[in-house]
Amino acid sequence: MPVVEDAMESDLIAHLRGRLPRHPLLKLGIGDDAAVLNGAPGGDWLVTVDMLTDQVDFRLAEADPRRVGRKALAANLSDLAAMACRPVAAVVALVLPRRGGLELAIALYEGMIPLAEQYQIAIAGGDTNSWDGPLAISVTAIGQAGSRGPLVRGGARPGDRIVVTGSFGGSILGRHFDFQPRVAEALALADGYRLHAGIDASDGLARDLAHLVEESSCGAVVWTDRIPISADAERLAAQLADGSTPLDHALADGEDFELILAVPPDESQRMIADQPLQVSLTVIGEFVSGPGLFQQDPQGRRRRLAAGGFEHQFD
Amino acid sequence: MPVVEDAMESDLIAHLRGRLPRHPLLKLGIGDDAAVLNGAPGGDWLVTVDMLTDQVDFRLAEADPRRVGRKALAANLSDLAAMACRPVAAVVALVLPRRGGLELAIALYEGMIPLAEQYQIAIAGGDTNSWDGPLAISVTAIGQAGSRGPLVRGGARPGDRIVVTGSFGGSILGRHFDFQPRVAEALALADGYRLHAGIDASDGLARDLAHLVEESSCGAVVWTDRIPISADAERLAAQLADGSTPLDHALADGEDFELILAVPPDESQRMIADQPLQVSLTVIGEFVSGPGLFQQDPQGRRRRLAAGGFEHQFD
Repeated sequence: MPVVEDAMESDLIAHLRGRLPRHPLLKLGIGDDAAVLNGAPGGDWLVTVDMLTDQVDFRLAEADPRRVGRKALAANLSDLAAMACRPVAAVVALVLPRRGGLELAIALYEGMIPLAEQYQIAIAGGDTNSWDGPLAISVTAIGQAGSRGPLVRGGARPGDRIVVTGSFGGSILGRHFDFQPRVAEALALADGYRLHAGIDASDGLARDLAHLVEESSCGAVVWTDRIPISADAERLAAQLADGSTPLDHALADGEDFELILAVPPDESQRMIADQPLQVSLTVIGEFVSGPGLFQQDPQGRRRRLAAGGFEHQFD
Repeated sequence: MPVVEDAMESDLIAHLRGRLPRHPLLKLGIGDDAAVLNGAPGGDWLVTVDMLTDQVDFRLAEADPRRVGRKALAANLSDLAAMACRPVAAVVALVLPRRGGLELAIALYEGMIPLAEQYQIAIAGGDTNSWDGPLAISVTAIGQAGSRGPLVRGGARPGDRIVVTGSFGGSILGRHFDFQPRVAEALALADGYRLHAGIDASDGLARDLAHLVEESSCGAVVWTDRIPISADAERLAAQLADGSTPLDHALADGEDFELILAVPPDESQRMIADQPLQVSLTVIGEFVSGPGLFQQDPQGRRRRLAAGGFEHQFD
């Protein structure tokens, strides 16, 4: 989720926003991390789906399929975490290459089970197919909103601080498989603090921040010296030796699956002082009233920040 | 849904039934047309997913992609109809070939929209990817159970009549795209009559009946002269001229998306006398206490009925 994660897909979401029928139960449709269904008295239900495919999201020839299965579920849990919702259940649709399909299906599910146990979610069934193509795995996760309702992308206000969990960049070295979706962290933060907006960093810190400001009709300034750069980003920049810096990787790489939050200034101060999570919380900038995404160096020099990150290509 | 639709996949479901963690919210997991989540006071929620793929479920080179999109949604609605549930929302995950992906995505959604309007369901968003492989489309549908709860596969009892909607066979001539999921019909029948079990005929009349008796721990006898054979089955048998009869096609072809119901004898009599639907209702046999699936001719000769139908292949 959502339908559109990049510029090339924006034509699709623009089309769908005008075309998809309105529905009394649908409080929030395409364009956020999960769709929100107006629930019974128990609260809203959230639904999110992600399709992962061989050669795009993983390379099956090189990866343990249990890690692939785990990633497919974890990416969905991260979408629910972005909305500060509790995951409840998941359904799985597989299309398997014909050779070794059964063994592969079992390994994919085996990778999901520990995560399902950890987050106490039901794997509620699925659909299994085979074909002459490569592996595709689609997981749909269902969650329940907390008492404060789902945290959406569109709520950031000028002056809010940009708060992130963890560190960024270089996830390709392994973390893109083994990340912990920030479910417990998001629930704890939503419970203890006033949050205005949230998204998970799947496409890259800069790109996901761009999604957030677009939905919130505001802009953002990132203080480049405050961005928590992961050790993986350092390692990757050194390995590649292509002129890219660790900061470039932190801004653009994607699949960190950390939280990016919009938090009122006073609340962000309290949050940073508390450090209520096991993972670090860092203020990396602020939302501003004009449109656009900017980076600012310690000398106060500001320039436009390219969204960068991973792009799906349509011809 | 479910995970397993054929013998080759039964190893997977056997494995998963032992391995997937139990969950207090999950009233019914793998092995039925949809999973059942214990809902708020508003009733149970049902979730079902189907993945359709190019060359297996359709041939994109020959088919209008709007019909493909429609089929992907309609197949899920049929799963909810099989459980006599009201569809509420759907989410869509696509993986598109890179060339012409945007145009294709729009056409797929355009095919779903009239069906979503007809059944008043929300298309709640989705995930869109592209790759160097063929089209795969995964739709997850969410429904709400009626006051009588979901109709499951496991409730048929010896003596119950086998009641079907519509007619069977030859759907490949076009009906596999353009069928009407029996949502309204299932809701009307569940409202007006006592039903013991139900399934939709997606894999073929004989195979789906085999699923039903397996889950119900009983057997069934089909009266071959009572099976409503579609005009498509007649046409297909004539076209193929391979010795297959229209009855063979009605029993084995699949993708009729009609309802197969287990109905107590007195109730089935009332139902047949009433004929409360626009589509015909026919008694085609009865459930029996021993295991196995049998066909019986008008002379009372009984022999084993091969399940036949479409098989996914695992190596």
